[in-house]
Parts: sequence; structure tokens; C-alpha cells
Amino acid sequence: MSHIAVPLPQACRLLNHGPTVLVTSAHAGRCNIMAAAWNTVLDFDPPKFVVVIDKNTYTRELIEASGTLALQIPSRAQAELTYAVGNSSGRDGDKFATHKIATFAGSHIEAPLVEGCLAWLECKIIPEPHNQQTYDLFIVEAVAAWADPQVYSDGRWHFADGAPRSIHHVAGGAFFEAGELFRARQD
Amino acid sequence: MSHIAVPLPQACRLLNHGPTVLVTSAHAGRCNIMAAAWNTVLDFDPPKFVVVIDKNTYTRELIEASGTLALQIPSRAQAELTYAVGNSSGRDGDKFATHKIATFAGSHIEAPLVEGCLAWLECKIIPEPHNQQTYDLFIVEAVAAWADPQVYSDGRWHFADGAPRSIHHVAGGAFFEAGELFRARQD
Repeated sequence: MSHIAVPLPQACRLLNHGPTVLVTSAHAGRCNIMAAAWNTVLDFDPPKFVVVIDKNTYTRELIEASGTLALQIPSRAQAELTYAVGNSSGRDGDKFATHKIATFAGSHIEAPLVEGCLAWLECKIIPEPHNQQTYDLFIVEAVAAWADPQVYSDGRWHFADGAPRSIHHVAGGAFFEAGELFRARQD
Repeated sequence: MSHIAVPLPQACRLLNHGPTVLVTSAHAGRCNIMAAAWNTVLDFDPPKFVVVIDKNTYTRELIEASGTLALQIPSRAQAELTYAVGNSSGRDGDKFATHKIATFAGSHIEAPLVEGCLAWLECKIIPEPHNQQTYDLFIVEAVAAWADPQVYSDGRWHFADGAPRSIHHVAGGAFFEAGELFRARQD
């Protein structure tokens, strides 16, 4: 598993294009994984993000207990997994075991990081009880960021032909794959 | 300009895959347009969204005065426009005139809707002063939703070969185009 550190002031670039993410969480030896299409960037530096986590989820219990979570960008090869972990509860069984999900340890938080993803953000929650209670909306700050150098390095995505790409959930298991990377300006 | 109404309980599907949007605004005869990659869905029904609008923007002034804004999904043909209106201020001149942007009227709000987009959301702001002041974060609720039937109908995107597609900003004028639409499950 190859991964390189992404400088935190550039970490927002990892989610700027709107990919669906996997959310991992852990507290006191228990851990979980779910999917979240509802995420976006909130600020550059320090890099902040928002993510919606339903109050009925097991993830919600773990992130509120630990104050941390990891966001990671699955590739198309992980689309079926992404849909599966987004439509089952960790309360009904360990999703890591069920789906044979390989992980590696982060540097700052307890949540495991999923192997095979394109990039990873280790995050701490900035407590905003009103948003969390009223909207299931969490504001998080990345404290470490990593990317697979096959697809991201020197501050840029480079999805060559055949390279794994991010996925963008529409509804009911239908996703877009990230397509051509292009520049709006020719300068 | 062809557009069809999207039922509000399905309106979240329009932004679920993370496209960059154009934000239009109007108040008392003044109007503006900017780009926002930092947006996502917040709830299904009524459909709510979040969007980040910097407090220094002219858009900010107009939306806080009117309590409304429109989000619309530009196509790749509008990528250069999207980048241009995201990197200039309406205080320096009318961007609609500068870029010869054709618009049509919405049904519920004053903000003009941009022709040639893939879908449109007319939104009212749910006032959350703390989020707005601290994070430039706006929570909005769609009161009307529209789509170009060439690319969206019956609750589904259908980007056939050659059809216009959404764009997903990375950084500095680099975008991904939405790629292949696929299903994670074969059922």
C-alpha cells in the first residue's frame, strides 16, 4: 500500500471535485465504515470539510464519542463495497470482516484507513451541536492527508488511462466515474 | 430553452454526484453570478443543500438581502464561463453583460436562471447566522427544481454519448467532466 503525505494547505483539493467518500470511525476498540456522498469542502487552510452523518447510524455513535473520523476516496473498483457499506449497519455485524476490508493505521486518529482508496483525510470534529442535532451536519478539520501517488502527486490529480478514478453517487447504487480531466483555460 | 420540473423529493439527485454549480442571485433589480464547487446535499425532503459563499463576495450581499439564490449545474461547454465568473466580482461590472449570459426567469425567486445549464434549483436560505458568519456556510431549501430533459428525466441522469455533462472543479481552472454512469450492483 503506497501512500504519500499531502500538504494540509492543499488537502481541500482531494474533495473539491465532489467524490463520494467512505467514512471510517473508531472508539475504544470498536470501529465502523459507511459511505457519504453528502460532503464538501468548507475551507482551505486549515482544511475543513462538511459531511452529513445520520443520527441513527453506528458511525454517529463512534464519531461523537471519539471526536474524530476519516474520509477517504474509493475508486471504481470499490464501488460495490461503497454501496454495500452505505446500505448496512455496523450494529448488525462488523462490516470490515463481512466485506474483508483491508486497512492500515492513520497517524493521528484511531479510525482505520481503507486500503485501495485514492486518498485519505484524518479529521477531527469541530463541535457544532446545533448543526449536528438539527441537520446531521458535521464540520471537520483535516489533521493529516494522504494520497496514492499513482493518481495524485505534486498537488494534482492525474488519472491516466486505466488508472483508478473517483466515483460520484447519484442514487440507488448508480454512480458516475470521474471522466476526462481538462482545463477551462488554455494558458 | 427546454426545461422540465423535477419533483422536489427527488431534487437532491441533481447535486448528489458533486458537480460544481453556478450561483445566481438578485435583489431590488441588481443581480450577480458566481461559481461554487463547495456545495452538497443536506436532506431529501424538503430538499436542502449547503453552499459556501465567501463574505467578501457581491453574491453574499445580494443573497443576504433577498434570502434566496439559485444553484444551477453548468455543462462542459460552460466551463470557461464557470471559471471566469468564479474569478471576477460583480462589483467590477455586470458579469451577465460581460459574458453575454442568456437567462430565463424562475418561478419562485428573483434570481435569473442561466440558459444552457443541465439543471436548476431555486432556493430560499434557511437563516443560520452562526454558520454564515463563522464559516461562510449557507443552508438552503429548494422551492423549485428544473432539468434539461436531454440529460435528466424520470428521476435519472442519462448522459448519452455527446450529451452535455456536469463539471467538477479541482483547482485553478482544472475540472473533471462527469464520466461513465454505471451501477454498482447488477440486479
